[in-house]
Amino acid sequence: MFESADIGHRMGRKAYREAEPLLRQALLKAQFDLLASKHHAVVVLVNGVDGAGKGETVNLFNEWMDPRHIRTEAFANRGKPSEPLSDGRPPMWRYWQVLPPKGHIGVLFGSWYTEPIVRHAMGDDGKARLQARLENIRALERMLSAEGVMLVKLWFHMTKDGVRQRLKTLESDPKTAWRVNPADWERLKHYDEYQATAAKVLRKTSTAEAPWLVVDGSDPCYRAITAGQYLLQNLQRAALPPEPVPTHAAPQPPAPLDGRSLLDGFDYQRKLARKAYDDTLERLQGRLNGLLRAPAMQKRSLVLVFEGMDAAGKGSTIRRITQAMDARHYRVIPVAAPNESERAQPYLWRFWRYLPQRQHTTIFDRSWYGRVLVERVEGFCSEAAWTRGYDEINAFEEQMTEAGAVVVKFWMAITPDEQLARFEARKTTPHKAHKITDEDWRNRDKWPQYARAVDDMIDRTSTDIAPWHVVASNDKLWSRIEVLRVLCDRLEATLAKD
Amino acid sequence: MFESADIGHRMGRKAYREAEPLLRQALLKAQFDLLASKHHAVVVLVNGVDGAGKGETVNLFNEWMDPRHIRTEAFANRGKPSEPLSDGRPPMWRYWQVLPPKGHIGVLFGSWYTEPIVRHAMGDDGKARLQARLENIRALERMLSAEGVMLVKLWFHMTKDGVRQRLKTLESDPKTAWRVNPADWERLKHYDEYQATAAKVLRKTSTAEAPWLVVDGSDPCYRAITAGQYLLQNLQRAALPPEPVPTHAAPQPPAPLDGRSLLDGFDYQRKLARKAYDDTLERLQGRLNGLLRAPAMQKRSLVLVFEGMDAAGKGSTIRRITQAMDARHYRVIPVAAPNESERAQPYLWRFWRYLPQRQHTTIFDRSWYGRVLVERVEGFCSEAAWTRGYDEINAFEEQMTEAGAVVVKFWMAITPDEQLARFEARKTTPHKAHKITDEDWRNRDKWPQYARAVDDMIDRTSTDIAPWHVVASNDKLWSRIEVLRVLCDRLEATLAKD
Repeated sequence: MFESADIGHRMGRKAYREAEPLLRQALLKAQFDLLASKHHAVVVLVNGVDGAGKGETVNLFNEWMDPRHIRTEAFANRGKPSEPLSDGRPPMWRYWQVLPPKGHIGVLFGSWYTEPIVRHAMGDDGKARLQARLENIRALERMLSAEGVMLVKLWFHMTKDGVRQRLKTLESDPKTAWRVNPADWERLKHYDEYQATAAKVLRKTSTAEAPWLVVDGSDPCYRAITAGQYLLQNLQRAALPPEPVPTHAAPQPPAPLDGRSLLDGFDYQRKLARKAYDDTLERLQGRLNGLLRAPAMQKRSLVLVFEGMDAAGKGSTIRRITQAMDARHYRVIPVAAPNESERAQPYLWRFWRYLPQRQHTTIFDRSWYGRVLVERVEGFCSEAAWTRGYDEINAFEEQMTEAGAVVVKFWMAITPDEQLARFEARKTTPHKAHKITDEDWRNRDKWPQYARAVDDMIDRTSTDIAPWHVVASNDKLWSRIEVLRVLCDRLEATLAKD
Repeated sequence: MFESADIGHRMGRKAYREAEPLLRQALLKAQFDLLASKHHAVVVLVNGVDGAGKGETVNLFNEWMDPRHIRTEAFANRGKPSEPLSDGRPPMWRYWQVLPPKGHIGVLFGSWYTEPIVRHAMGDDGKARLQARLENIRALERMLSAEGVMLVKLWFHMTKDGVRQRLKTLESDPKTAWRVNPADWERLKHYDEYQATAAKVLRKTSTAEAPWLVVDGSDPCYRAITAGQYLLQNLQRAALPPEPVPTHAAPQPPAPLDGRSLLDGFDYQRKLARKAYDDTLERLQGRLNGLLRAPAMQKRSLVLVFEGMDAAGKGSTIRRITQAMDARHYRVIPVAAPNESERAQPYLWRFWRYLPQRQHTTIFDRSWYGRVLVERVEGFCSEAAWTRGYDEINAFEEQMTEAGAVVVKFWMAITPDEQLARFEARKTTPHKAHKITDEDWRNRDKWPQYARAVDDMIDRTSTDIAPWHVVASNDKLWSRIEVLRVLCDRLEATLAKD
């Protein structure tokens, strides 16, 4: 991967002094065009050999452009105090926190590549583990790209001799000797392992949608103009709308011929008497409270997802759960149509934000499943977007569970008749009338399409690690108890294995 | 993945008798539209539970459409006598052999999914191995889709009870009892493991470009019309040209500012005297012959790739190699622009065909690297196509080496001046005049673009398993010896590890 950079590239001071002001002017213009157009966000990943000009280039970028619209974030290998603390959230969480909205530029000094390279080069991760990490990165970058985030991946390169020469030169001058510390010489010893790993990683992740640029960092003039011009090219492309490309799209599988859905085949007759409900509720709330306070839970977090047709009873069920929780340790996130700042981000961004830290719970009242439910049915996103959604969602939940989250997903299932009865009741109950809108009636007309989307959702996203629990909810009492019971069982089973 | 199929779907005989003639007529028309349009090839993958109607559906497809334009191939788990014998070639080779050209339909009864599912369900492959296989499948299917092969992936499903019921019914009737054998009951015992693996595999490989359709196979009418209609939908889409889809394309990394290339930095002065050449040639040819006849070589094959600018001496070097080989064991494949039948296939197809079996050698005089050289520089393929080419090529070579091939790649490097001298010499030598065409002169004008493409090619495809050997070839004698020496060294090193 570094063969052509190894030959050494140079640019004279004179050529630099001519190129630099023009580049600077063009970059500033491109930055403002990007800001005005809002078609893409641009994320610059800065990685490479120490001493090959990473920091200097980041500084130049901020000097050349308007730094108010550039967010620069430095990431060390395993987190350092200045970074957002992931604290039990998936490792990617810290990058999602600093993702720039469309129109803006983010510079990540150190990135999701740092850890895989270091761990493999140092022998902590084997070949299979590295491959798995790289596949996750490729999936992430494919999604970011599809969602309008343009990735500018810069690798600053320097030969082993170049690094050695640089350290010697710095040490030989008393004014610069302080820049060299023993860790630099130590790192040089591992140069070959790092380079071999980096070459493999760069090759595997130089994709059509997010290629790497290897910048020979040995000459400051050459590397500055090379990195700057590539950034310019990207900013200019990013200011334009996506281009139509001929695509061989497969038709999506059809609905079942007999129109039957999972939700039809369900037993909606189950009921619970008030007395039995009251007794069981209190018992289950106590059990839940105990489980959440269990020592094993201190290393875990809890993510609850509630989905269901309108008026299925999500809100009232959630309240029965939170009654058993410590208010300092949970939050309920009601999910509606995305607002402006959410629309300027990849669709999963607004859910990444609210992932709970260790010992905490987030309850999503509707969730990322909107992508494959309402957005699919209502045509709020393209077919290409929701069809790739299943995969992206599975990967998202996999990251949560790998970081220690228990993910419990409920579909609260009611029949169309029951929904109608509840709508009518809401209309005539003054304090509930605001809960029923024209949109609810419109959604109701699309019941079969939603039922179809639910089938696909359950088929595609009910996984071992995060299965769906479909709960018959025509009887509110029965369904609340059932939800609480499933939740306690899942928690208990998970904690028992810890 | 099978939740919504588990509820059981039905279609009445009457509805079937109405739907079937219409479907049949539409399928036949769609088949001929596909044949006339030649935009896509259609490959139907037929997988699923035994007894759920796989064979019956394949028969129906052949009955409903014109079987002369359908190629049906059955693949067992580990190869059986009727299949093309891969004999040391990569496992995917047998599927590439039967890939239909554009306009045609191929039906694969059993597919690249069979082995991963069986091996994981039976405990032969662990989780990591399954993941790696699935990633390879996803990459393959992405490439096939991008190259215009539409994949129709059918999974015939039946519940465990359904399978048991079916076996009992068959056994209870003397006329059908012969259809059941002990292996069927044995398989039923492993139903749950198979289903769990299959669900995971289907979820991970239900991509936007190639989704799975799970067909409930318990009712013959329902499954026939469901599978037929989905095939129809696919044939109709396949007869249309690819649709333009808005795509966030990243700009490709720029050429080095100083215009320097790997090929410039090379020592072209090396020479060899005729006498030394003659002696060394014979010695090396003997060494090569011995290596190829080594016992360890019986389990391996050899793939040689020769690339280089026009007149770099590829042909004459290849002759010095074949002089040391047994004519029954090698073939030389000269690669020019693809012919009509090659253009109707994914670009790697014509190279897959010639992969050598065990103990054999294929020498490619130019190769799949045309994708990222001439096709890139001359614009014969889209930017999207050559940018994904590096990855596809690395995966191709990885499959070769995993199957035991030794892959040795040479770039024969000459200077522009040397090329000019050789062109002039060819013009004036009667028996060589045919070797020089207008195209050669045109290519020469694009030397810098080719040099740039060579840099990227070497950076991106010089891997541990299949590194590039750049050989200075201004002096023909020196270069032939160098090629032979490198080849012997690579073979010796590989065989020594066996």
